[in-house]
Amino acid sequence: MKTVILAGGSGTRLWPLSREHFPKQFIKLFNDSSLFQKAVNRALIFSDASEVYIVANEKYRFRVLDQLSEIGVKIPEENILIEPDAKNTLPAIYYAIKTILDKYGNSKVAVLPSDHLVDVNDSYKRALEGAESLAEEYLVTFGIRATHPHTGYGYIKPGKPLDGGYEVEKFVEKPNLYKAKEYTKEGYFWNSGMFLFKPNLFIEECKVHQPEIVKAFESDNLQEIYGRLPELSVDYGIMEKTDKAAVVALNTFWSDVGSFDALYDIFKKDEKENVVEGECIPVDSKNNFIFGERLIAVIGVKDVIVVDTSDAVLVCSKKNAQKVKDVVEILKSRGDERAEIHRTAYRPWGSFTILEGADFYKIKKLTVLPGRRLSLQRHYHRSEHWVVVKGTARVIVDGKEFLLKSGESTFIDVGKIHRLENLGLTTLEIIEVQIGEYLGEDDIERFQDDFGRENKL
Amino acid sequence: MKTVILAGGSGTRLWPLSREHFPKQFIKLFNDSSLFQKAVNRALIFSDASEVYIVANEKYRFRVLDQLSEIGVKIPEENILIEPDAKNTLPAIYYAIKTILDKYGNSKVAVLPSDHLVDVNDSYKRALEGAESLAEEYLVTFGIRATHPHTGYGYIKPGKPLDGGYEVEKFVEKPNLYKAKEYTKEGYFWNSGMFLFKPNLFIEECKVHQPEIVKAFESDNLQEIYGRLPELSVDYGIMEKTDKAAVVALNTFWSDVGSFDALYDIFKKDEKENVVEGECIPVDSKNNFIFGERLIAVIGVKDVIVVDTSDAVLVCSKKNAQKVKDVVEILKSRGDERAEIHRTAYRPWGSFTILEGADFYKIKKLTVLPGRRLSLQRHYHRSEHWVVVKGTARVIVDGKEFLLKSGESTFIDVGKIHRLENLGLTTLEIIEVQIGEYLGEDDIERFQDDFGRENKL
Repeated sequence: MKTVILAGGSGTRLWPLSREHFPKQFIKLFNDSSLFQKAVNRALIFSDASEVYIVANEKYRFRVLDQLSEIGVKIPEENILIEPDAKNTLPAIYYAIKTILDKYGNSKVAVLPSDHLVDVNDSYKRALEGAESLAEEYLVTFGIRATHPHTGYGYIKPGKPLDGGYEVEKFVEKPNLYKAKEYTKEGYFWNSGMFLFKPNLFIEECKVHQPEIVKAFESDNLQEIYGRLPELSVDYGIMEKTDKAAVVALNTFWSDVGSFDALYDIFKKDEKENVVEGECIPVDSKNNFIFGERLIAVIGVKDVIVVDTSDAVLVCSKKNAQKVKDVVEILKSRGDERAEIHRTAYRPWGSFTILEGADFYKIKKLTVLPGRRLSLQRHYHRSEHWVVVKGTARVIVDGKEFLLKSGESTFIDVGKIHRLENLGLTTLEIIEVQIGEYLGEDDIERFQDDFGRENKL
Repeated sequence: MKTVILAGGSGTRLWPLSREHFPKQFIKLFNDSSLFQKAVNRALIFSDASEVYIVANEKYRFRVLDQLSEIGVKIPEENILIEPDAKNTLPAIYYAIKTILDKYGNSKVAVLPSDHLVDVNDSYKRALEGAESLAEEYLVTFGIRATHPHTGYGYIKPGKPLDGGYEVEKFVEKPNLYKAKEYTKEGYFWNSGMFLFKPNLFIEECKVHQPEIVKAFESDNLQEIYGRLPELSVDYGIMEKTDKAAVVALNTFWSDVGSFDALYDIFKKDEKENVVEGECIPVDSKNNFIFGERLIAVIGVKDVIVVDTSDAVLVCSKKNAQKVKDVVEILKSRGDERAEIHRTAYRPWGSFTILEGADFYKIKKLTVLPGRRLSLQRHYHRSEHWVVVKGTARVIVDGKEFLLKSGESTFIDVGKIHRLENLGLTTLEIIEVQIGEYLGEDDIERFQDDFGRENKL
């Protein structure tokens, strides 16, 4: 079985934990592991690493690579399918299915979202295995038996029983509470977003229901293809229209982790029904979700979400958890970059965190991944002091090459061509003090870059 | 008229803004000005700077000096009376009164708390001037006509009318709501904690009601005196017992700023009755007090206090504002220094802020006040990199003396004797990167110190 992981989602309802450039699937929510990493591990139950395909947006390329490398999973680079634009799930799946068909022929493919939490138990494995024969004739979707009337999920009404599942009678979009209660009583499934099918059948159905997508993919130029594609979900575009949809019951814990109240439900509670991740002093407080980097004291509050990150704090009543996206909208409308990035920004070579900034200086902590190097570069407005606090750096300044080990420092004057490289096997950490009259990230002239970021200069 | 400012209070109900080493009176709550600085300005209405006395605890000495220097007020150093222990208001006032009596004789003295907010209007000035003749025969206290039944204030029942005031019929400790309503209806005053009296009368009354305090002050050794003194408030020790108490009405805005709900009442509200100091995005939220260093988003919350500082966040329902002290108690019981200090720690030479810390390195921003210098010192476990980001430093390392200007840096290896000095007229700012196997503040051997902090080594 081949597996496609969809990693292009950019949810806004977990802000400030998630940001546009660091969406939900990459946050380390659970024991230092992300939903994306968990999805990769689920994929490896039925597929070899070489048979796993990942579809993600350009801006997540290095998150995907780094998180794979963190868990030591080697997926071939050509299996990482980078979309130039986010066009929702149908184009993403089509892109992967077409790639797999070209390489492996009509071999069965599982499609897994990377931003859901799924508990892998025996029933999960049996359901996927059991669905394989159904997938000979159907586009198989997986349904979670609705246990309560959730209004944030899509529903599937099972129809005629099949061997190992049901024909799908209909798909229903997120219902109101009244409808959700009805569906729950009548044994509908929650739509898990997981699929199993054979490429040819999928493409046949696309030809019938979304011919313009099939047509767009006839081009060889990805940019051109994505320029022509509509934004379309696989549910709306294919599953709701086809008469080849089957549903297989998945008897396991599943959540779309779509908002902080969903996260609250997932995490372990203390004796006052508080979820506490991080350091908290609760006084007369119950039913809260407390998640922070700093010490958080809560007094006399209940049913509240408190999320603390290095540059933003969220305090939200649980029943308003869906409105977190409104804050992100407000930030975006103001061009406020806290909608998009964390104080820690990720780069192909690692990451940097702004520790302190003022008009005339900026202090950054740089973390360079093993074997990576920054571009050969020059600044016109700032000088830089580097102090190595962990690892050993190879530094080039003005043509001179030397090593700097932990506790050593160097100075790069304005206008000097320089480069920083980590030759070691562990991360390299540098404290950089920038001084200058202008400290924007765009004061950089790149002469060579391992990641194709040379300037046009 | 001489003035005594009481600056020894150490309230815990504004944590995390206030800390044991940085109490309420020193916080810059209003337009970059502290309650202490406002009290100094009130003192200067009736007294020359040389006639203003400040009583404070040892640990606040440099806060007092720095905040005076910030507002450009030169109070003679001998007028800053440092108490070795905090023994509440009676010993503090007695210490100041005795000092003033020795120097000026039986000259009238106003006593002003430094941790209250008082609006200075014409009525305020007239009340103090008008009280002068009453002070010939009475210990005059000032009362705010109770406008609502506040249960956090002491009350004064006025008795026989006098010229410009009333005899005090009785003092009442913080009442319950029922009693407070009664007192408000009957025209009681709130006890403002301000006094005006002549030293001889005050000392006479102390002799009658608290002879052990008078006796303790017969010693010449301040340490010995404070060792013998009881903890006693002037209200409980003298004012409630004397029959020489008079009260003068103060018709002005007054608040003890005793908790965040009191602060909420003071600040200007937006159209949703939110108080916002700092950056906030409120969605469907009203009646909140939002005070932060970072961006704070609040969604669907009301009557909540959110206070964000660099190392701790408080989320507290307004009606539980008094319980903030419980959090401080919990921190203290755990030996957690966030009860005592901010991430920024104050030193006689300026301050430092810890920007980032790990096991093996620590990054600090040092701010050195004009004309001040750190001790001549040595560390056994850490090396230090200094990068000047503002101002010019005079540095001594290993006997060599040199200047470092903005953008320059130096390295101080383990074991080297060194010193940092700001000869300039503006603050000097340095980024210090410490590296070592042990980074505690106690790894310091001092050879000379301008502030009497030499090691016993």
